[in-house]
Amino acid sequence: MSLTKAEVTRLRSLQDKKVREAEGFYVVENVKVVAELLAAGHAFEELYALSGSELPPGAGAPVWVSAEELARISHYPTPSSVLAVGRMRRADLAPGELAGGLTLALDGIQDPGNVGTLLRLADWFGCARVLLSSDSADLFSQKVINASMGSFVRVRVVAGSLEPALALARVAGVPVLGADLAGESVHGLAATANAVLVIGSEGRGPSPAVRAEVSRWVTIPRYGGAESLNAAVAAGIVLAALRRT
Amino acid sequence: MSLTKAEVTRLRSLQDKKVREAEGFYVVENVKVVAELLAAGHAFEELYALSGSELPPGAGAPVWVSAEELARISHYPTPSSVLAVGRMRRADLAPGELAGGLTLALDGIQDPGNVGTLLRLADWFGCARVLLSSDSADLFSQKVINASMGSFVRVRVVAGSLEPALALARVAGVPVLGADLAGESVHGLAATANAVLVIGSEGRGPSPAVRAEVSRWVTIPRYGGAESLNAAVAAGIVLAALRRT
Repeated sequence: MSLTKAEVTRLRSLQDKKVREAEGFYVVENVKVVAELLAAGHAFEELYALSGSELPPGAGAPVWVSAEELARISHYPTPSSVLAVGRMRRADLAPGELAGGLTLALDGIQDPGNVGTLLRLADWFGCARVLLSSDSADLFSQKVINASMGSFVRVRVVAGSLEPALALARVAGVPVLGADLAGESVHGLAATANAVLVIGSEGRGPSPAVRAEVSRWVTIPRYGGAESLNAAVAAGIVLAALRRT
Repeated sequence: MSLTKAEVTRLRSLQDKKVREAEGFYVVENVKVVAELLAAGHAFEELYALSGSELPPGAGAPVWVSAEELARISHYPTPSSVLAVGRMRRADLAPGELAGGLTLALDGIQDPGNVGTLLRLADWFGCARVLLSSDSADLFSQKVINASMGSFVRVRVVAGSLEPALALARVAGVPVLGADLAGESVHGLAATANAVLVIGSEGRGPSPAVRAEVSRWVTIPRYGGAESLNAAVAAGIVLAALRRT
């Protein structure tokens, strides 16, 4: 088939976060990631595939396109063999929800690869949800989705302002832990079924407004000269401690 | 001053690993990283700086160049204000060295950002050294140096084939731990002053030849659906356990 100019323009424009938010759709092109998301039960709204290419299981009937058309709609200089379009779903925090399970709260994590890695980590440690601050990388950017390796589908993510959510957690008596360069040692932390863990950007740590909602500071003892740990590494070490059996 | 064509060609060509190995020099351009390396006591052989730009402390007398010259010698489309050239130093393993302290052995970690993050982690946890397999990202690539944030200078790195080094560790009675999807739980691991920890690529894990040298397998219990953890996250969790006090 031949795509209209308007269709090409629409699909290309979804690389812009503002357009994604206005339209309510996002794009995934990496065929391996599309396969992982389909395998995890994710349904796409539209799928464009290179004529004659092999489709991932569960892809359904795609719109077959030529290499030239795929190059025109792709967000990358070197297109994959598919371009999948999904509908963005925004989750809201239910009242009292934070009282159940572990919550990973990401404050100003701007690197999309880091956010994806953190989603994967939250998935590994069975976090009930991830809170993603508005100034973190966009959940629906391809880099985040690719780095999450399918955890994008499995982890419940609530995006928005962290402060009101953390204030609710405090009112509900759920401990709000913050990882920082000073605090009690992670090695003394007891395993905890219900808690929120706040991870800030590795340079600055959590923002002042978020810091005000943290009830306990946790640190990872340092033995050498590095000034900081990668945010995902720090989160992994604290989550492992919370899950210690 | 005006750089000769041969000088421009030489500086540009150092972005190629083979040229770096033949010439024995590497390049760092990120001015923040150059400043960190200087602050950590690293000496550069040559420093090219944009005329009129501010130099990091300890930079010494640079070769001042024009924006056009900097663009010609830079390895990036958008040059920084400095280009520093350092001399590559290759470390060899001393006899019996592995018996002292913690060693992080990286097996086939190809992503340079991951290798840099792992160097930073080794620095944080005071590892005595890092062994870097020949099929890992090159220590002297700018991406590794930038991601290491100065740990490049502080951590002793021995690059080469892992198997003979690990075999020496085994003979010396140093435990060689390997992180994998199966093994004893990291939570049961006792703090250990002298050990080698082998981290493989997150997709494949350690290579078969390296696996044969591992004496104990350690795993990070999983609670959710993710298929793997990022290599640096896994290394951080195991190193934290080895440093538990």
